[in-house]
Amino acid sequence: MSDVCLIVGAGDGTGAAVAHRFAREGFTICAARRNGDKLLPLIDGLKAQGHAAHGHALDARDEEQVVRLFAEIEGSIGPVGVCVFNVGGNVRIPIREMTREKYFKVWEMSALAGFLVCREAARVMVPRGRGTILMTGATASMRGGSGFAAFAGAKHALRALAQSMARELGPEGIHVAHLVVDGGIDSEAAHVRQPDRYARHGRAAFIDPEAIAEAYWHLHCQPRTAWTHEMDIRPAIETW
Amino acid sequence: MSDVCLIVGAGDGTGAAVAHRFAREGFTICAARRNGDKLLPLIDGLKAQGHAAHGHALDARDEEQVVRLFAEIEGSIGPVGVCVFNVGGNVRIPIREMTREKYFKVWEMSALAGFLVCREAARVMVPRGRGTILMTGATASMRGGSGFAAFAGAKHALRALAQSMARELGPEGIHVAHLVVDGGIDSEAAHVRQPDRYARHGRAAFIDPEAIAEAYWHLHCQPRTAWTHEMDIRPAIETW
Amino acid sequence: MSDVCLIVGAGDGTGAAVAHRFAREGFTICAARRNGDKLLPLIDGLKAQGHAAHGHALDARDEEQVVRLFAEIEGSIGPVGVCVFNVGGNVRIPIREMTREKYFKVWEMSALAGFLVCREAARVMVPRGRGTILMTGATASMRGGSGFAAFAGAKHALRALAQSMARELGPEGIHVAHLVVDGGIDSEAAHVRQPDRYARHGRAAFIDPEAIAEAYWHLHCQPRTAWTHEMDIRPAIETW
Amino acid sequence: MSDVCLIVGAGDGTGAAVAHRFAREGFTICAARRNGDKLLPLIDGLKAQGHAAHGHALDARDEEQVVRLFAEIEGSIGPVGVCVFNVGGNVRIPIREMTREKYFKVWEMSALAGFLVCREAARVMVPRGRGTILMTGATASMRGGSGFAAFAGAKHALRALAQSMARELGPEGIHVAHLVVDGGIDSEAAHVRQPDRYARHGRAAFIDPEAIAEAYWHLHCQPRTAWTHEMDIRPAIETW
Repeated sequence: MSDVCLIVGAGDGTGAAVAHRFAREGFTICAARRNGDKLLPLIDGLKAQGHAAHGHALDARDEEQVVRLFAEIEGSIGPVGVCVFNVGGNVRIPIREMTREKYFKVWEMSALAGFLVCREAARVMVPRGRGTILMTGATASMRGGSGFAAFAGAKHALRALAQSMARELGPEGIHVAHLVVDGGIDSEAAHVRQPDRYARHGRAAFIDPEAIAEAYWHLHCQPRTAWTHEMDIRPAIETW
Repeated sequence: MSDVCLIVGAGDGTGAAVAHRFAREGFTICAARRNGDKLLPLIDGLKAQGHAAHGHALDARDEEQVVRLFAEIEGSIGPVGVCVFNVGGNVRIPIREMTREKYFKVWEMSALAGFLVCREAARVMVPRGRGTILMTGATASMRGGSGFAAFAGAKHALRALAQSMARELGPEGIHVAHLVVDGGIDSEAAHVRQPDRYARHGRAAFIDPEAIAEAYWHLHCQPRTAWTHEMDIRPAIETW
Repeated sequence: MSDVCLIVGAGDGTGAAVAHRFAREGFTICAARRNGDKLLPLIDGLKAQGHAAHGHALDARDEEQVVRLFAEIEGSIGPVGVCVFNVGGNVRIPIREMTREKYFKVWEMSALAGFLVCREAARVMVPRGRGTILMTGATASMRGGSGFAAFAGAKHALRALAQSMARELGPEGIHVAHLVVDGGIDSEAAHVRQPDRYARHGRAAFIDPEAIAEAYWHLHCQPRTAWTHEMDIRPAIETW
Repeated sequence: MSDVCLIVGAGDGTGAAVAHRFAREGFTICAARRNGDKLLPLIDGLKAQGHAAHGHALDARDEEQVVRLFAEIEGSIGPVGVCVFNVGGNVRIPIREMTREKYFKVWEMSALAGFLVCREAARVMVPRGRGTILMTGATASMRGGSGFAAFAGAKHALRALAQSMARELGPEGIHVAHLVVDGGIDSEAAHVRQPDRYARHGRAAFIDPEAIAEAYWHLHCQPRTAWTHEMDIRPAIETW
C-alpha cells in the first residue's frame, strides 16, 4: 500500500501541479476541495496517466469533516505520508469597510482550516515517526499591506502555525515547511486580471505552478539532517 | 471636552499603568475589560487623583458591544484620541491536544477583538484626521515557538493588523503602532509563576508596566514626520 | 562633573538635534566629525545656550584616533554616559560598477567606525555598570535593495553589531539600541534632492531630526526592566 | 564545452559535496580555496569518477587574484554558469576583546571576498543573460548573538549582498540565492567539537553536506518564473 499525498485546496493551479508531481513518484493522491465536482478533471487526468487518485469534497473549516476525511483515508486508502495545505483566499478591503463576517471568513479559510488539517496530519504522523506537512504562504504571510488586515492576519497565523509545528514536531520526525509564494500563479485568469503585466512580460511574469510543485517535492525529499522550514518563490522579473 | 484614551484590556498591569500615564496628561480615561467589577480599583484610583475616568464592562469579541461602546463614548464622554488594545491570553498546548474551540478562543480574544476595536477606532479617527492606535504584542508576535500554534497565530494576526492599518491610515493622519513586549510583566503573580527567576534577579527580571506606559506615551507624542510602527521592550537581563 | 554624551557623526541634522536634546538635560556634549571646522556652528550654538560642549575632529575609521578621543574625554571632560554613532554614507551603485575601494570605504565608514566607537564605549561603560549606546540605522539596515550591495552590507553589519552588543552587554547594565531611520531627514538639501516629494508634501515628507533626538532621549530614559533594542521611524505619509 | 561550476571556499564539507553534485550533472568543476594543496583529494576524487575538475589556489580577499581567476576560467576552461561562495570563518569573541584587526579579517573573508567573487560572476553572467550565484549563510546571517559582533556583521553583509544582487540581477536573468545553514555541518571535526551533542544524537545532530548540495542543485534548476531568494536548512532535532 503506497503512501498518500493529501492535498487540501486542490485547485487548478498549484494543487493540481503538486498532485501530478507526487503521483509521478508513486504516491496515491487524495485531492480535496470544497466543491468536489470541480475535482473531476484532476482526478480523471491522474487516473488517465495510471496514477491512483481520489477526490474528496471537503469544507476544511469544519472539524468533523476534516477528522472524518483522515479516518477514511487512513482506514481504506493508505497512510498519509505528505499533507499539503494550499487554501487561498486573497482579498483586499479598506479597514473601515471590513466586516466582522469577512474578517472571520478569511481567517477561517486560511488559518483555522490550516490548523485543523495540519493537526490531524500530526495526529496520524507522529505515532509513525515520519511525515511531511507543507503549507502554502503568500507575500501577505510576511507583511501586512494596506487593505490586507484580514488576509495578512490569516496568512501570518498560518505561518505561525508552520513555525510552531516545525519546532514541536521536528524532533518527532515530522518535517513541517512553509513556502512563501511571492507573486501571482500563472493561469489564464491571472493574465486577464493583470493585462498590463501580461502584455509586458508574458507568462514570465507569473509563477509556474509546476515549479512550486517541484519545490514541494524537494522539501519532501530532504533528509532529517537538513530540513528547510521556509523558502520563498517568485518570478525573476520581480524587483519589488 | 478633553480627548479620551480608551484602553481595552485594562488589567492590573500594563493597562492600569497606561491609564494613569495618559490621565496625568489630561486625557479622560475609558477603561474596558470583560469583568467590569474588576475595574473599580483602577477607576477609583484615577478619580482619587482627580482624573476623569470611566469603567466599561466589555466583551471585545462581540461586535455589537464594541460598536455600542464607541458610540457611547463619542456621544457622551469625548472624542477617542488614543485607543490601546491590550488584551492578552497566552496559552501553551501541544499541537495534537489543541482543540478547535481553544484555537478559536485564543484568536477571538487576541486577534478578532483587536480588529473590532481598532476598526471602530479608525472609523471615528479618520474623519477627524488624527488619532493614535496602539497594540500590545508579545514574543509570540514574532515567532511561533513549540506549543504556541494558537497564541502565536493570534498575535501574528494582530501584528499584521497593526502593519496593515499603519500603512493604510498613516497618510490619513492616524498613527498605528505595535509594541512587542518580550518578557513577563512585573507583578506578584509573575513572581509566583517564575520563582527561580525572581529569586535570582528580583524585580529586575520582569518588565515594569510603567515603562511600557512611558513607551506608549512617547509613541503618542511623536510628530507626523517621525512615526514609529514597531518597538520591542524587554528586561536588561534578557539574553535569549 | 556631569556625564558626557558623545556623538560621532555630528552633522547638521540628526547629530546636532541629539546634541541639543541631551544638552538640555544636563549632559556635557562632545561632538565629533571628520571635519572639525564644520562643528563650530553647533558648538557655538550649544555654548550660546549655556551648555557645556566640545568639538572633536575625528576620523572614526582610525582606531588610534578613536581610542585617543575616549581617553581624552574620560580623562579631562567627564565619563561617557551616552554614546551615539550616527555616521551615514548612503550610495547607490550597480553591482558590476562597484569597485573594491568603494565597497571597502562604505563599510569602513558605516560599520568599522561603528565597531571602533561602540567598542571603546563598552570598554569605559562596562566597569561602571551603566551607559547607553545608540546607533543610527536606515532602510538599508533591514533589506538590500537593488544597487545597495555596499551600503546595505555596511548597515546590516552595524545592525548585527547592535544586536550582538545588546545581548552581550544588557546583563552588564549597558543599554544598546538601534534606530531604523526609514526615510530622508528634513533639510534644505533634501528638499533640493527630492523636489517632487517636497512639492507634493512639503516638510511632512521628511523626518524631523528633533523627533529622532526625542526618540533617542526616550531610549536613554528607559529603566533596566524595559529596554528597547530596536525601533523604526518614518514620515506618516510613507506608505511603501 | 560544458558550463563551469566555480566553488570558492571548496573545503571538505559543503564545498566538496557541491562539487560532486554539480559534476554528476555534467558541469566542469573549478574548485578554489586559499591553500591549493588541500584541493588535491577533491580534484583527484572528481577525476577518478570521470569528471572534469580544476583546482585553483585563491585568496578571495585579493581583487587581482579573483579577477585573474575568472579571466583564466572563462578564457581556457568554459563559461561560469554557476558560482558558489562558500567561505566560512565563524569566531566568537567578547566585544571588548575584539581587535580592529580581527573585526576586519572576519569581514574581509566572509563579506569582501563574497562581494569580489559574486561581482565578477555578475560581470561574466549578465552579458550572457543567464547564470546562478549561490551564497552560503549561517545562523549569524539572521541575528547577532552575544560575542558574534564580527561574524554576524560579516554574514549580515553577505546576506545584504545576496538580496541586493537578487533584486538587481533577477530581471537580467541571473538567479541569486542565499542559503541559511542553521547548524553544524557533519564531519569528524564537528563530532569532536561537540561531543555531548554527538553522544546524544549521533550524526543526526549535524547537517549532511550532501543535503546542502542537493538544495543548491534544486535552486539552480528552478525556472525563471519561480526563483527562491532564500531558504534555511537545519537538523530535524534542532528545536532552538
